[in-house]
Amino acid sequence: MDGVLVLDRQKGITHLFNPNSIAVIGASATKGKLGNSVVRNLIDSGYQGRIYPINPKGGEVMGLRTYRSISEISGDVDVAVIVIPARFVLTAVEECGKKGVHALVVITAGFKEIGHEGQEAEKKMVEVAEKYGMVIQGPNCLGIINTSSPYNASFSSGTPGKGRIAFASQSGALMTGILDWSLMEKIGFSKFVSLGNKSHLDEADFIEAFGSDPDSTFILLYIESVVDGRKFMEACRKVVPHKPIFIVKSGVSEAGARAASSHTGSLAGSDTAYDVAFKQCGVSRAANMAELFDVANVYDDMHLPSGNRVSIVTNAGGPGILTTDACEASGLEVTSFSQETIDLLKKELPPAASVYNPIDALGTAQPEDYAICVEASLRDENVDSVIVLLTPQAMTKGAETAQVLVDSHKKYPDKPLVAVFIGGNSMVYPRIILTEGGIPVFDFPERAVNALAELYHFTVRRDRIKEEAIPRFNVEMDTVKEIIRNIRKDRRRVLLGNEAHAIAEAYGIPVARIRLATSAEEAREIASDLGFPVVLKISSPDIIHKSDVGGIRLGLETPEEVEAAFIQILGGATTHAPKAIVYGVEVQEMAPKGKELIIGCSRDIQFGPLIMFGAGGIYVNYLKDIAFRLAPLSSTDANELIFDTKIGALLKGVRGELPSDITGLEDTILRISQLVTDFDDIVELDINPVFAYEKGKGVIAVDVKITIGGEE
Amino acid sequence: MDGVLVLDRQKGITHLFNPNSIAVIGASATKGKLGNSVVRNLIDSGYQGRIYPINPKGGEVMGLRTYRSISEISGDVDVAVIVIPARFVLTAVEECGKKGVHALVVITAGFKEIGHEGQEAEKKMVEVAEKYGMVIQGPNCLGIINTSSPYNASFSSGTPGKGRIAFASQSGALMTGILDWSLMEKIGFSKFVSLGNKSHLDEADFIEAFGSDPDSTFILLYIESVVDGRKFMEACRKVVPHKPIFIVKSGVSEAGARAASSHTGSLAGSDTAYDVAFKQCGVSRAANMAELFDVANVYDDMHLPSGNRVSIVTNAGGPGILTTDACEASGLEVTSFSQETIDLLKKELPPAASVYNPIDALGTAQPEDYAICVEASLRDENVDSVIVLLTPQAMTKGAETAQVLVDSHKKYPDKPLVAVFIGGNSMVYPRIILTEGGIPVFDFPERAVNALAELYHFTVRRDRIKEEAIPRFNVEMDTVKEIIRNIRKDRRRVLLGNEAHAIAEAYGIPVARIRLATSAEEAREIASDLGFPVVLKISSPDIIHKSDVGGIRLGLETPEEVEAAFIQILGGATTHAPKAIVYGVEVQEMAPKGKELIIGCSRDIQFGPLIMFGAGGIYVNYLKDIAFRLAPLSSTDANELIFDTKIGALLKGVRGELPSDITGLEDTILRISQLVTDFDDIVELDINPVFAYEKGKGVIAVDVKITIGGEE
Repeated sequence: MDGVLVLDRQKGITHLFNPNSIAVIGASATKGKLGNSVVRNLIDSGYQGRIYPINPKGGEVMGLRTYRSISEISGDVDVAVIVIPARFVLTAVEECGKKGVHALVVITAGFKEIGHEGQEAEKKMVEVAEKYGMVIQGPNCLGIINTSSPYNASFSSGTPGKGRIAFASQSGALMTGILDWSLMEKIGFSKFVSLGNKSHLDEADFIEAFGSDPDSTFILLYIESVVDGRKFMEACRKVVPHKPIFIVKSGVSEAGARAASSHTGSLAGSDTAYDVAFKQCGVSRAANMAELFDVANVYDDMHLPSGNRVSIVTNAGGPGILTTDACEASGLEVTSFSQETIDLLKKELPPAASVYNPIDALGTAQPEDYAICVEASLRDENVDSVIVLLTPQAMTKGAETAQVLVDSHKKYPDKPLVAVFIGGNSMVYPRIILTEGGIPVFDFPERAVNALAELYHFTVRRDRIKEEAIPRFNVEMDTVKEIIRNIRKDRRRVLLGNEAHAIAEAYGIPVARIRLATSAEEAREIASDLGFPVVLKISSPDIIHKSDVGGIRLGLETPEEVEAAFIQILGGATTHAPKAIVYGVEVQEMAPKGKELIIGCSRDIQFGPLIMFGAGGIYVNYLKDIAFRLAPLSSTDANELIFDTKIGALLKGVRGELPSDITGLEDTILRISQLVTDFDDIVELDINPVFAYEKGKGVIAVDVKITIGGEE
Repeated sequence: MDGVLVLDRQKGITHLFNPNSIAVIGASATKGKLGNSVVRNLIDSGYQGRIYPINPKGGEVMGLRTYRSISEISGDVDVAVIVIPARFVLTAVEECGKKGVHALVVITAGFKEIGHEGQEAEKKMVEVAEKYGMVIQGPNCLGIINTSSPYNASFSSGTPGKGRIAFASQSGALMTGILDWSLMEKIGFSKFVSLGNKSHLDEADFIEAFGSDPDSTFILLYIESVVDGRKFMEACRKVVPHKPIFIVKSGVSEAGARAASSHTGSLAGSDTAYDVAFKQCGVSRAANMAELFDVANVYDDMHLPSGNRVSIVTNAGGPGILTTDACEASGLEVTSFSQETIDLLKKELPPAASVYNPIDALGTAQPEDYAICVEASLRDENVDSVIVLLTPQAMTKGAETAQVLVDSHKKYPDKPLVAVFIGGNSMVYPRIILTEGGIPVFDFPERAVNALAELYHFTVRRDRIKEEAIPRFNVEMDTVKEIIRNIRKDRRRVLLGNEAHAIAEAYGIPVARIRLATSAEEAREIASDLGFPVVLKISSPDIIHKSDVGGIRLGLETPEEVEAAFIQILGGATTHAPKAIVYGVEVQEMAPKGKELIIGCSRDIQFGPLIMFGAGGIYVNYLKDIAFRLAPLSSTDANELIFDTKIGALLKGVRGELPSDITGLEDTILRISQLVTDFDDIVELDINPVFAYEKGKGVIAVDVKITIGGEE
């Protein structure tokens, strides 16, 4: 069912992108009305298909005959743009369905964004559209523009220039601003889509459609949220190998209303899952709108760099140093040239010039000197991209130098070449030559370097996306089901230690053995049974941080110590947490100390189970040496998760220590990934600490905490 | 002597800033020559004093009579600008001295920057100048511009607009670029100084001079290094309370050629000392040139914000969210309004508007609505500054809204008000209204937020600069002198453990007692003497990381264990470090385990002793939980140093633990600060670990390593 739906949506978008005919429901002859702007934009953009203005009052709109309703039209209608008041929309959608329309652009506002009533109306509208197999863009959107078709079915003021960038935005106002700005900055687009309320078509649908659109080579998005995390990731994974996707995701600072009692929950910010999802599906997250367009500006003209090795050519030292700093800060390497390049530069440049990277051709550098340096860089196999700096000095010929760059790039078009022409009026004309010659140009080095670096980092992320099998272990699912069933019977959410450990055990996770004692006598017996030393822990669903109430006693060596500890622990609980329900005291075998780690899982509303790994122990919240991945994890994911932390490096064995059992750790992480994927019930899971021992000696989960969600 | 010199320099700069007469040595009638450009700029800039062109060939330059030499001039000459070839400069300087010139601007290149010969010539030139009490700006510089005098004694093409920003740059080319750019962007300057080779006047001199210049309210610098770290910090501390100083310091990525054997040395990057110095003297470090001028742009129009609480006014949700994110990321708080503001907004705005922060006045917002929102924000006591966003929507009136902001700011001029008008052509005219009305305006939110945040953070740093007494402890300096003398006799650089511990002890630093044993028998005796348990450590200047060669044995409880360990340690050294000179084995009392910390010191070439504090133990290099301060430290410095680290938070006592002895720790840090300040000989010092115990129970330096420098 889901598969069929996805197929339909893409077919719907095909109509949306290239309609043979468009009806505008709510077309108006009155200037200033949205229904007028849409018709005007359709005509002005040079749309070649049929336009059917629809208005119950009849008459003409901009020289076109209007229809009273869509049913009056004799020909086929591919797309209907709806700009009538919200209360009339449902009927119109129904009529469109009957007419056999394929796609709707609902510009009309007054739906989900106004509250419950609007939300209901929106839901009904989608139901009707789906009944007839129609897709909906919007409602509450600006419309859609396709510059290659061409057509502009929006109420924007102006149509963007033709280009290769597909842009979709969840904010209509921002989109309007960007369109206006792009006209001034001469940035072209292939598609320009306002997502609106995303009632039906969402960002994932458009990412997929942009992915198969031959006119789009670069995908930019502004979003505030995604509708369906899994679907979004799937669409991105499909597209990223062929086209870069750069996204500005806002709403980072929105304080999530999550009541997190676990370490994992409290350490995963409201935005962590987005960051991780983007990373895992190869999407680049732009820091802001300016960066988004800087990157687009470079990519629009240049291929992706094949590595991070940069050559810098300059006519002044200071800017060269600034550029070197910026490269270092953003992960680009100021490379060492081949001997051939060095020899050539030594021969051709004045003796005072620096022939190493950055190449300083001196303040007297002429266009010919730039040609030599730039082309030597473009030829050099140690160079992946070239940054050319020019400052206005007495003998500087800006325009001619710009032309040299344009010519050199034509000779060696495969390597990205970016210009930084520092200055004002003297650089205006040279910059025009560069822009028209297809060379991206910036005012100051940092933005140029950053854009280049982001493109490079995209290639790294993209190459890391591999279709990998998710490992599947033989586990005792039924045992877990049974335990959860019993807890639900008990109307509890927080599992007792022995229950949590039993679940872990059922999934093959090595755990310290644990049993519940309800009397000092029983504790003593269990301890003798497990073997000394043992650990005693308070067993209470109401006490999360046991050590805070003196609820943990370690290293108990004798039956007498166990009895005494039992009594003290209960006493402590009575004093510090008088209202807590106490089930007894857990007696646990004491694992020998290893490297202290934490593995956890919290559940993200959009993306599902979010696995955390890092430095464990009681200081987790202070050290914050942690990393995240979305489950289910592949073996590579588990490995990368470990080495994303600082403690990962320690596990390899440093300062004479033997390496830790990383294979065993990965195995445990993967089993946890399987557990939380199998059981939606598990909303929070913390294993802290996990002890990792020397290679070959495995790991042990010492303290497992699990919380299950309320039943749906 | 030093004080006198500083005084002279400032007097010299007074002449440099406001000369009654200027001689141009090397004035030329030939267009395109530097000596022609300087005279032309002097005349074009409207300089009101006497100009004396000097050229041995005589004749006229631009209608002015030339002199064959400076001695021919009958009147006084305040400043001489020198633009003759390097080989003639020394004679010219001598003549200037005899004439009684106060300040020289040496534009001529070919000095230090060309190597040894030039360096010698530069040194001689400075000697002659100092003999006559003259100051030198340059050589190898662009010259100097004072827009308030006004005068332009440089070979720049064009004179910058008048403004309140004093700008000095170590890169002439960058300066040229900035000047050109500023003319286009209409950014004004008070002073524009090219520092050149800084043979005599350096950045510190100009910072101090800008500080007392009534025409300058804001100081911007581009530097690649400072000449004298202490002098620089002193000048900044003097000026920062009255005027913001923002600096771009490049060369971050220059790999320092430091061969560091200590943790502290290897963890302090080549740029760490600059970062720390800026912080300790209240200077703001701008990330790049664009940020430098964004900040200037805001400060030029606005007061400094009195706090970090921001109000955001917008006509669209998306940009509001982006601005909120940017505020959060840069340390600004999207504040809660007073009830009065909320009530007013509720009354005045449409019901669908958001009256909480960000205020969303909706897409239909008119200039009057903006006036209400902005003025309510400016009046609200919970608001320190206001960011106003505008996107171009159907009913948006850009120009009128801009005028509203200008008017509102005039009514409430004390609170910073920054505009972000998103869009292209439709926003060009509104932006002009804002700029001319004194409201800084940006294209996208992030740069506006960043500039505002940087100004706020400056105020925080500035307010932290307090003149505090550096504590001085009673210590046994002579003991330390004696130990160092003996080591020098021995031609060693790395101190043995017992020597290092003795030095620490002499400065009142609590250390674990340590004695050297050269036989197993002796080790046994010492151990019995110190009391069990003890630690044994290999004693060798060639083995730095003892645990890597099995050179440390902990927790030895009996004389027998000590004997056995002695033999094993020597054996390990023979196997793993056969070439190492071994002095024996140190026997040390075993301190009970506390919080593991590191305190260290390395020496920065510009700024002197750099104290490090952080999480200690063998994982220091992996955890990198460290912070730095330049010695000598005040008590506040020591306290801030501790709490700049993550482990600082742990020392306060978390998760039920008792707090650590922070007072004792501060005392130890301050004593180390005094030690390395007293003894330049100590080039590296590492105490790792230092154990910190519970409050009142002090700290213990467990392992002290000291390296002394070669004798000067």
